[in-house]
Amino acid sequence: MPKHYGSLRRLSSLIFATLLPLLAIPSQADTYQFPKVPVPADNPMTPEKIELGKQLYFDPRISLSGAVSCNSCHNVTGNGTDNLPLSFGVFGRVDTPRNSPTVFNAAFNTVQFWDGRARSLEDQAEKPIQNPIEMGMPSGVAVVDRLEQIPGYREEFAHVFGDKKPITFHHVVEAIATYERTLITPDSPYDQYMAGNKKALDPSALSGMKLVEATGCETCHAGPMFDNTGTPMGTGFYQKFPSQPDYEPCAKYVKQYNLHGDEGRYKVTRKAADKNLFKVPTWRNVALTAPYFNYGTVQTLPEAVKVMAACQLRKKLSEKEVADIVAFLNSLTGKFPQQTLPQLPQTPDTTLLMGVPALTKAADKKMAH
Amino acid sequence: MPKHYGSLRRLSSLIFATLLPLLAIPSQADTYQFPKVPVPADNPMTPEKIELGKQLYFDPRISLSGAVSCNSCHNVTGNGTDNLPLSFGVFGRVDTPRNSPTVFNAAFNTVQFWDGRARSLEDQAEKPIQNPIEMGMPSGVAVVDRLEQIPGYREEFAHVFGDKKPITFHHVVEAIATYERTLITPDSPYDQYMAGNKKALDPSALSGMKLVEATGCETCHAGPMFDNTGTPMGTGFYQKFPSQPDYEPCAKYVKQYNLHGDEGRYKVTRKAADKNLFKVPTWRNVALTAPYFNYGTVQTLPEAVKVMAACQLRKKLSEKEVADIVAFLNSLTGKFPQQTLPQLPQTPDTTLLMGVPALTKAADKKMAH
Repeated sequence: MPKHYGSLRRLSSLIFATLLPLLAIPSQADTYQFPKVPVPADNPMTPEKIELGKQLYFDPRISLSGAVSCNSCHNVTGNGTDNLPLSFGVFGRVDTPRNSPTVFNAAFNTVQFWDGRARSLEDQAEKPIQNPIEMGMPSGVAVVDRLEQIPGYREEFAHVFGDKKPITFHHVVEAIATYERTLITPDSPYDQYMAGNKKALDPSALSGMKLVEATGCETCHAGPMFDNTGTPMGTGFYQKFPSQPDYEPCAKYVKQYNLHGDEGRYKVTRKAADKNLFKVPTWRNVALTAPYFNYGTVQTLPEAVKVMAACQLRKKLSEKEVADIVAFLNSLTGKFPQQTLPQLPQTPDTTLLMGVPALTKAADKKMAH
Repeated sequence: MPKHYGSLRRLSSLIFATLLPLLAIPSQADTYQFPKVPVPADNPMTPEKIELGKQLYFDPRISLSGAVSCNSCHNVTGNGTDNLPLSFGVFGRVDTPRNSPTVFNAAFNTVQFWDGRARSLEDQAEKPIQNPIEMGMPSGVAVVDRLEQIPGYREEFAHVFGDKKPITFHHVVEAIATYERTLITPDSPYDQYMAGNKKALDPSALSGMKLVEATGCETCHAGPMFDNTGTPMGTGFYQKFPSQPDYEPCAKYVKQYNLHGDEGRYKVTRKAADKNLFKVPTWRNVALTAPYFNYGTVQTLPEAVKVMAACQLRKKLSEKEVADIVAFLNSLTGKFPQQTLPQLPQTPDTTLLMGVPALTKAADKKMAH
């Protein structure tokens, strides 16, 4: 059974287990709950802020081209990714550096990005918008300038934030992060099982559940999100990947899937100890978010399981073991929230998207024609 | 007051008007209704087909890159366009040939595309998917191949169409067209006014309503959608644009906005009479769908009104007249349907989007790196 807590909590579990027959404490099945989403004290959730954040999340006008939104790469009509190895950036750029992780349950990540360079969803949201490869806005000020020209946003920001200057870039990312905190997927077969429905997992998934412990996957893929061992929010739980490149089967994968091409957290800290360190990603909905790893070079989940066994644990799994682990990982696919489609505030009589650089060049060519 | 019918119907209206005092027939205010959407007999609407069509409409996997959906350019979180002069195509291509018209109320268009080259929504949907610039799929068969690999679609198509081979390209476009027939925007201020709420239009809009008749705009922008004079579905109502290029103010616009760069319907028929002929576009929600005309070269609605007056009617309007007509056009902004966000069927354990050409090239470069 997956460990849900760090060593201290494991100790208390042990005490619990020992006392259980004596005290008739309710069993785990009665008390199991999908965790509550952590909300920072300085950015409380309100229905209006969620709705505003959803509009901004879907709004391509916060990209330079006017054609890329948060949802372009973290598509919430699907699994919160684009299922591409690397996403297309602004103007169709193909040099985005890493695979887009899912936005679902990202609210539980203790840090954001593969290299943990953002400590919160708010910090995260600032970056792709201003990344010249991704959404291409030259600055937060440029984002605010765009939004100030949309009457509906002026009203909504004033209503939600009520400040003298309601539209600020910080408020933009606060609203987006607030929406993202609603993108939670509880009630997976695993959660149903933990809540007492013993039929929710089939024998293969149950065998997989034991295997992820026996094999050692859970050393890192622990806790309710299977991504840390009780690490506090904002801290980050990292592992070296690949950690066993000298193990022959891993060496083969390193070459085949380019597992050594990315310095990981070292790029952020420039500390030698952080070379090839990556945030341990969640297992929640992992079956849906192919392809895998920082470059998205591995197409299937069974192959990803083999790579991890070889490159992190120096183990070679049998085909049956791989299939069982994959069955368990599939049991972590949760229920995606039913959502209404946002209606983006409009700019009657005009558009903000004349003179987009790439299009302007093409239009000039057509005019000269 | 805008004409809602062709000449035959105008005759019957005249008879009505003559008989009205005698027969105490209910006034127009009591009987006015936003028109019912026309549905072809061989593609009836069902809730399941609508939902399937919505999923396909939002699904970027029916493009070669895996990143462009119908919704990318005809964005239903907004006004059914992308508010760009020309849309970005697949792989960020900037050579899309014409401005993307709105999908809202497209179900009422008697033909589709600026040049009317599709006679129905079904015919229309086939084309961008297979256009090498737009969504880039090499064929309808290639679309079916992708969808066949998505278990949820196999089930849904079988449920909706129940054929032996349920996923066909024709069924794909039937489902998309069915969803599009729900994208209707009734209950605009104009509709409220016509239904008897005389306060729904302010004096400027009312003055504009008279002006569009007096100026002659309604010669073409007639009927409930303000886009034809009673033309039957599948037929197409076209006008030459610009029709007055020798009128000096128009000549200036032709040069400034490249109004002569597009042969229009001639490209489809190769008939000399069809040179520079375009489908008359609807006025419904026109205030939201800037920029204007086939190349999207005109940024604002007031400017578009001036261009039309000069280039179609040899007229120069005063600033007040322009403002009133713009106020009337704004009264044609309807209520957009509340929608749920679709949930796209997934491909557990794998992705269909490895080896996308542009990304593959970039990935190879990274591997070589």
